[in-house]
This record gives sequence, C-alpha cells and structure tokens, in this order.
Amino acid sequence: MFELELSNARYWRDCVSSIVSLVDEGIFNISKEGIGLKAMDPSSISMVSFFIPNKAFTKFKIDKDANIGLNLENLSKILSRARDNESLVMKDSGNKVVFEFISQNGSRRYVMQMVEARKGAEKEPSIEFDANIEIGGDALREIIKDASLISSYISLRASKDHFGISARGDSGELEEQHQADGAVTKKVSATKNADSVFNLEFLENMVKSCPAGVPINISLKTNEPLKVSYPIGDAQITYFLAPYIEE
Amino acid sequence: MFELELSNARYWRDCVSSIVSLVDEGIFNISKEGIGLKAMDPSSISMVSFFIPNKAFTKFKIDKDANIGLNLENLSKILSRARDNESLVMKDSGNKVVFEFISQNGSRRYVMQMVEARKGAEKEPSIEFDANIEIGGDALREIIKDASLISSYISLRASKDHFGISARGDSGELEEQHQADGAVTKKVSATKNADSVFNLEFLENMVKSCPAGVPINISLKTNEPLKVSYPIGDAQITYFLAPYIEE
Amino acid sequence: MFELELSNARYWRDCVSSIVSLVDEGIFNISKEGIGLKAMDPSSISMVSFFIPNKAFTKFKIDKDANIGLNLENLSKILSRARDNESLVMKDSGNKVVFEFISQNGSRRYVMQMVEARKGAEKEPSIEFDANIEIGGDALREIIKDASLISSYISLRASKDHFGISARGDSGELEEQHQADGAVTKKVSATKNADSVFNLEFLENMVKSCPAGVPINISLKTNEPLKVSYPIGDAQITYFLAPYIEE
Repeated sequence: MFELELSNARYWRDCVSSIVSLVDEGIFNISKEGIGLKAMDPSSISMVSFFIPNKAFTKFKIDKDANIGLNLENLSKILSRARDNESLVMKDSGNKVVFEFISQNGSRRYVMQMVEARKGAEKEPSIEFDANIEIGGDALREIIKDASLISSYISLRASKDHFGISARGDSGELEEQHQADGAVTKKVSATKNADSVFNLEFLENMVKSCPAGVPINISLKTNEPLKVSYPIGDAQITYFLAPYIEE
Repeated sequence: MFELELSNARYWRDCVSSIVSLVDEGIFNISKEGIGLKAMDPSSISMVSFFIPNKAFTKFKIDKDANIGLNLENLSKILSRARDNESLVMKDSGNKVVFEFISQNGSRRYVMQMVEARKGAEKEPSIEFDANIEIGGDALREIIKDASLISSYISLRASKDHFGISARGDSGELEEQHQADGAVTKKVSATKNADSVFNLEFLENMVKSCPAGVPINISLKTNEPLKVSYPIGDAQITYFLAPYIEE
Repeated sequence: MFELELSNARYWRDCVSSIVSLVDEGIFNISKEGIGLKAMDPSSISMVSFFIPNKAFTKFKIDKDANIGLNLENLSKILSRARDNESLVMKDSGNKVVFEFISQNGSRRYVMQMVEARKGAEKEPSIEFDANIEIGGDALREIIKDASLISSYISLRASKDHFGISARGDSGELEEQHQADGAVTKKVSATKNADSVFNLEFLENMVKSCPAGVPINISLKTNEPLKVSYPIGDAQITYFLAPYIEE
C-alpha cells in the first residue's frame, strides 16, 4: 500500500517525460527513500536511471517497498492532462494505480493497470571518465540541431580546456569549438583527451527534458559510453549512451 | 431575391463553422424572420439546428422565402478569408450566391454555385429530458480531451446536484465528478438520474465553436439523444446526438 | 580565393531563401562588384535573378572572379541555423566553401562541397511591359491566398488606374478590384491594358521572401512573362514567370 502526493502535478509530468523519451515501459521502485527507475531502451544502446527523494513529496506513505510496472507512454499521456495549480495523488488499489488530479475546481481520477514490465540491466555501468563538461541545456540542444542537419551521428571531444563537436555527411561538415568558461560551456575538466561518436537521436532525447536554465553534465572517455545527467527539481536523471564505433 | 449584410464578416465565419463541424452541405432557409438551417450528419447519428434572427443583420432584404443549398466546406474556406474590419454582403444572382467582403481598402467578391443539398430530418426530436447542465465551454472541451486519451466514447451522467463523466479503455479509466455551482459546472437540475454514453468525436465537433466565456447547455435522459446548445452572438446553435448503446 | 563577411548571418539566410524558393541549386558569380546568381527553375517556366553589391559586406576580398556552384537547399538549411547576433564569413578552401558563424560565444564552421550546377538561361528576357504596379508585399500574399481557395491559377490585369485579379474553379469564382493609390495598391501605371494568367504556386514562391513593409513591383504585358521584383536590404531579387495560356 502506498499513497504519495505532489503539490504540482505538472512537475511529475516533467519527471516522467525525461524517462519516456527513452523507454516506453518501466518499473518504479518505491522505497522509504523515494522512487527510482532504471531501464534500458528497447535497442539496449542506452540506459536511463531516475531517482526522486521522498522530500519532493507533500505526502509519502508506504507500508513496504513496492515495484510498480507501468506503460510509461500511457502514463505520460495522462500526466499531459495536468492543469495549472493541480496537485497529484498517486496510490495503489489492487493491481491498479490511481492518479488523482486535485484542484479547487474538483478532481479527476485516472486509473491505470499495472503491467509486467521487462527488467533491464539494473546496474549503471562503472566507468572512470577522463573528462567532464558542464554545458547549458539550451546551448546543447542548439548544437544537436546544428549537427542534425549534416548527419545522424555527432562526435564529442574534450581536451584540457576545450569542448568540441563535429559532424560529417554527404551535404557537408560541421565543426564547433567551445572554450571552457565561455558562454556555452560552463566548465571543462579533462585528465586526458576524450573523443567518441554518438547517435544524435538518442542524445536529442536525453537532453530534451532538461529544464530551462539548468546546466547538463556530460562525462566522456574515448570509445566508452557517454554519461549525461541533470536535476529536475529534487529529482535526478542520468542517462548512458553507448558510443558508435565504425567497423 | 435577397440581399443581406453583416457588419462583421468574421462573425458569419464563426456561425458557419458551427454548422460545418457536423455537415458538409446544407440548405439555408431564408425567411423574413431570419436564416435557419437543419441537417443530419451523413451518418445520421447527429443533427444540427441553426437559427440567426434578422436583427443580427445591418441589412436584411428579401422579396420571398428562399432555400439556398450550398457546399458548406467551400463556403467555410471562403469565409476563412475574412479579414479584420470587413463587412459581408450576401446576395443571390441567378443560381449563384455572391459573397462580397467590403472594407475601406476595397472589396473582394466570391461567387458560389448553389447546389441541390440532400434534405435530412427537418424536425428536431422531441424529448422530455430529465436533466439539464450548464457548463463552461472551455471546461467541457478540457473534459473531452481528458476522456479522448482513454476511449472514443464518454459516459455523461447527472444526478440531483452532480455532473459526472467517465471513460474506459485498454490503457485505463477516467472518472470525473463535478458539483453543481462549482467552477466547472454552473448549474445542474435533474428530476431523475440520467446516464448515457456518446461518441467523443461528435461531441468534440459540437462544442468546438462555442465562443470563449459562453456556457453550454446540455440536456440528458438515459439512453436518449443528448441535446447541446449555445448562442453565437444573436444566433443559436443546437445539436442532437444519438446515444451509443452497447449490444 | 575569396573571403566575404556579413555582419548579420540571418540577412544572408533571407537572401538565399528568396533564391531557393524557385531553384534547388545554382551558381554564384562572385566579382568585384558583388555576387550575382541567375537560374531557371527545373521546369523552365520561371527565372530568378539575384544581385547583392559589395557594399553590403563588411569584408569583400576576392583575387579573381569565381563561379561557385552550390546545392542551395543544403545551403539554406545550414543558414537556417544562424542565431541572433552572429556574423558570417564565407570563404573557399579548395573545392569547398566554408561558412563560419561567429559570435561572442564562439564559432561554428560548416563546410560544403561545391557542385557542378546546371547552367540555365543567363539572360533576363527583354520585354517592353505595358503596366507597372506597386503593391504591398503582405497585401499581395493575402490576395494569393484568396485565389488559392478557388484555383491553381490567377488572372492579373491592370488598366490605367486599376489593378484587378480573378480566379475561377469548380467551387466558385473570385473577383478583386483595387484602385491605384489605395491601401493595397500603391501605384498603377499602364500605357495599355494588360491581362494574363499565372501559376499561383510559382507566384506564391516569388513573393514569400519579400521583407515586411517592402512594396513589390509587378510588370505586366498581355500574354508575356510577368516580372516581380523587390529589394532585400541592399540586395535586389527579380523573378520572371511565363504566362499560362490555355490552348
């Protein structure tokens, strides 16, 4: 039995958006500490790891740990119906989950069936990254659009004090170089140069839920998975993306 | 012979939009009292009844009653070209109708051929409804979107002082309950409980032309057609929609 | 070798938009005077002639005349990535052209391969037009939308002091008459009446890049090509469109 309440229903919509951009179903692990979700995307080249602590909730009542599998696409649609100034109560009822939107104007109750979601790799890859970059979310989204014109892949590279990207396609080439502490790249720290190629569509899905004004953290190591993470209020979302290695 | 003038061409565009949302052609009955149109939709599960009195016009000259069949989709496209501060003159010319948009900047004349529109049930169904609900147009449109996530059908029900809706589908269930005199439902009066299921797409088309800030009147009786009506300025639009009865 | 700099990258985007609306590839002729491009559209019923003088550039360095063939659709996509307050440097590098967007936040370099563009009729048709019309760009765009409802063709006609248009289709007819010196038509001068029919889609593509507030010049002669021209800042764009003559 659990009953959780958030004062702002749209905040939960934003949290779920960050997950559904990569996976269409998943298992929420509800424990005393908060709610976590870890899942691989269906093609297994990326992973999402989400956690929101209990302090983000105005009510957080559980009697024992619970694993709640849900169709995230349906959940995301339901949450898109959240209106201004609505709070959200989530609770279980048998093998269903009730989502109740509450405002002064009355309440709406959506009920969703739990599903047996596939389990994925539950552990985050442990990589000793060589470089860390802090970059504005909007700036990174623009860079991704720049590269999408040219290719489906983007090369990211970091050196001691530079962050660079490039893309290469039939219609042309793109080269961008950003200095650390510049307007785009807030910080770059690299113990070694790092350079890898990634799928642009996945990267785009990973950065699109980053709230305005929030910087994104990127960790790189040559030919190792990329780590992308940022906070959404009290919650933290982390993604991993396998590099594209030409054979 | 008729010659009619409206000071605001976009107002007539809005009136015709409320009709074309259900039927693609129809016969305007022009009499001394005003202009009426009654038509069934092609599938015969809904009906629209429109009337605009002569007082809405700045000029209303007819020598005898006239029945003018028009392709309403083409008419609607032409009226969508109305610009700010344009007046509209409508007059016949043989078996054609002239629509003249007039402003200080000059005039534009569209000419449309009359058509032999199919005749539908000309009489409104006479039902003694058990419940009447007055609800904000915007609120009802949001409710319809809530339910569309879940199903193609919506159940509407009214009791002495409550208006409720529900929807049920593969992805989940929705339940909303609104108190009379609340922010959403202005008034509910019911001599008996009423509960019926309706096609959401038709209902959506029926409420989309309701002007902002104008309440919609809904009349219900279990397993009988729904009546939906609202004013558009001086004009009145009324729709009927047959209930969906599972067999 | 050439190196050209514009203080506003988006201005060059607007210039190229006016060309790519008719042709998908073309040859820029770079000379000391500036940059010109003349091309027929693939169906050969229209022609575009563009010229921008050297004074529009903050740097204009060439060692000898150059003919640079480019895929204009790809170029247009790249230029659509220009951001606020970015300047643009264009220079050659072997058989490639480098487009560098520069701002305080750093720089981005796109590199495009030159192509062997087809050569078209290089000379503008020499016609002694009978009528000239000066009309607001926005007004002409609205007129084109009015006519598009009815037909794929539009008839343009000019007399001593009137500019008129008409369209005729299955769903109806449109007739517009504008007085010279009116709000829509700034000036009409005609030595003879002129009346021709033109393809609406081509005409639409010709007027869509006209900057807000800039009047368009139209030259007409019965059953001869139409000439449409307007400035884009220091640059001048001129189009010719063959009339549609029913057989």
